[in-house]
Amino acid sequence: MKLVKGMLAGDIGRLSRLISLVEKDDPEVPQIMKEIYPRMGRAYCIGITGPPGSGKSTIINRLTTIARKKGLTVGIIAVDPTSLFTGGAVLGDRIRMQQHYLDEDVFIRSMATHGNQGGLSRSVRGVIRLLDAFGKDLILVETVGVGQTEIDIMDSVDTVVVVLVPEAGDAVQAMKAGLMEIADLFVVNKADREGADSLITTIKATLDMSLKRSEWQVPVLATQGIKNLGIEELCQHMEGHREFLESTGKLTSQRKKQRRDELVQTVKQEIGGRFLMLMQNEERLVAIAEKVERGGLDPYSAALKILNDQALLGKLAISGHHSG
Amino acid sequence: MKLVKGMLAGDIGRLSRLISLVEKDDPEVPQIMKEIYPRMGRAYCIGITGPPGSGKSTIINRLTTIARKKGLTVGIIAVDPTSLFTGGAVLGDRIRMQQHYLDEDVFIRSMATHGNQGGLSRSVRGVIRLLDAFGKDLILVETVGVGQTEIDIMDSVDTVVVVLVPEAGDAVQAMKAGLMEIADLFVVNKADREGADSLITTIKATLDMSLKRSEWQVPVLATQGIKNLGIEELCQHMEGHREFLESTGKLTSQRKKQRRDELVQTVKQEIGGRFLMLMQNEERLVAIAEKVERGGLDPYSAALKILNDQALLGKLAISGHHSG
Repeated sequence: MKLVKGMLAGDIGRLSRLISLVEKDDPEVPQIMKEIYPRMGRAYCIGITGPPGSGKSTIINRLTTIARKKGLTVGIIAVDPTSLFTGGAVLGDRIRMQQHYLDEDVFIRSMATHGNQGGLSRSVRGVIRLLDAFGKDLILVETVGVGQTEIDIMDSVDTVVVVLVPEAGDAVQAMKAGLMEIADLFVVNKADREGADSLITTIKATLDMSLKRSEWQVPVLATQGIKNLGIEELCQHMEGHREFLESTGKLTSQRKKQRRDELVQTVKQEIGGRFLMLMQNEERLVAIAEKVERGGLDPYSAALKILNDQALLGKLAISGHHSG
Repeated sequence: MKLVKGMLAGDIGRLSRLISLVEKDDPEVPQIMKEIYPRMGRAYCIGITGPPGSGKSTIINRLTTIARKKGLTVGIIAVDPTSLFTGGAVLGDRIRMQQHYLDEDVFIRSMATHGNQGGLSRSVRGVIRLLDAFGKDLILVETVGVGQTEIDIMDSVDTVVVVLVPEAGDAVQAMKAGLMEIADLFVVNKADREGADSLITTIKATLDMSLKRSEWQVPVLATQGIKNLGIEELCQHMEGHREFLESTGKLTSQRKKQRRDELVQTVKQEIGGRFLMLMQNEERLVAIAEKVERGGLDPYSAALKILNDQALLGKLAISGHHSG
């Protein structure tokens, strides 16, 4: 594919167009992924998540500066499902990141759920793959840490940083949201605010109670993103986690799991699409669907009927709309 | 099923337990839905969506009061993916709704994405079905109108009310989020604030430009939920929309479409689950998955290989874990 070749040769415009195809869940995506696959796996990917207003963008901005000083190229993916209603905040991000916008070795892309039919976490993973193949050394993925989608996105990164701020109940809510389980590093940002110490204590106590993490001790760090305090230390701990993953073989096993997930998700998505096609063309399915529409058969009995019909499901193999 | 029989006989505790099963995406869900199906279709369902802080809960509270005065029983489903981080706001909702909490003909349930692996919009639809079968006359579904999930949820209701507040860019953002397309009624709440008139004008102008809506003229109403102003008028317009849907046969066709979607979603979900089972048991699949994990084959080529294998896909019919 010409677009892919151009992108792999370093064409940023073509990279952007490929990202748009991934966002639109274009039928060409599996083919694109297949072609860029040999160039994947070199980037290191860090996810940064936490509640709105915890200062994630500022921290990412600081981390980018440090990475650039080390000569690393950077890709940033900012996922914000609420950005549609917080135009101001996004504008704020852009202003904070302005210095990097002028740096052509930093690629920044915002992603929202709008118009995305195929699942945001799958799209984000696709964009990570593209940035990886493009040659970015470090990929930073920012998400608002609320909701299953945001948690799912973190399955596609190597190291997860959870950013909280000293606010009533933040730690408790982080626990409920499942952030305790996915955090490789905790950051208490805006650490000059009242309650920072007690938040750090609470997080540490909660981590101690959970018996899951035996090999990696999750650090809890204090930062002040705006004043650039604690960021170097955060960087060191991020590198420490990477070294841990590499030396224990966990990086390899995590990435194995990611590849398996990619296979499963791709098959599930494609089967779903093919089933929709079949619903329109296959006589028996059309009849069942019409009966369901009329109310003559409940959708759940109908589903079981379809699902137990071996010949019907076998037809999913030959009705492929992507492979035809 | 005993649980279903108890619920249908009016047991609120059993209703709550069934809702929890739907939220957990329990394997029994299709069977539950099948059993309650004959009791479905009597409730009228209204979705209320809009950005955070637009006063949706207050409006729902007011609407509930009016509905109860008319002798209608009410079910309220509050969907808030951010609620995990806004404990205060939820508490606020509860306080606002307190009068109805004591009314046993009003059932209120909050839903978040936490722990929900199977897709929030499918769960919400399941809960709507349960409340319908339970005998609620009116079901109100509140969502934060950001993101595809929230938009998807609105596919399961009869009438969609979009609530905005006079704030810079709200109308533009609503457009971007796709709310213009799904709104049957617009409400500009907190209409005493500066900018309300211009927001109403903008919404109307935007609606005029869109040629889609020829038969139903989307009303744009001004309300002040806190002062209970404009709510009666909103009620009348909601009833007007219901009458429009009924008299034009659109209610029937919308519900036909919902039943079809329910069939498609159930099949897709179940096929996905069965594929995961097959990945662990079917020799050929296990081999492909291992090759992908090792990096010997890219996930996308592997997916196409699987998807073009008729015998393999036919096995999805006999490996059912729900029907066995």
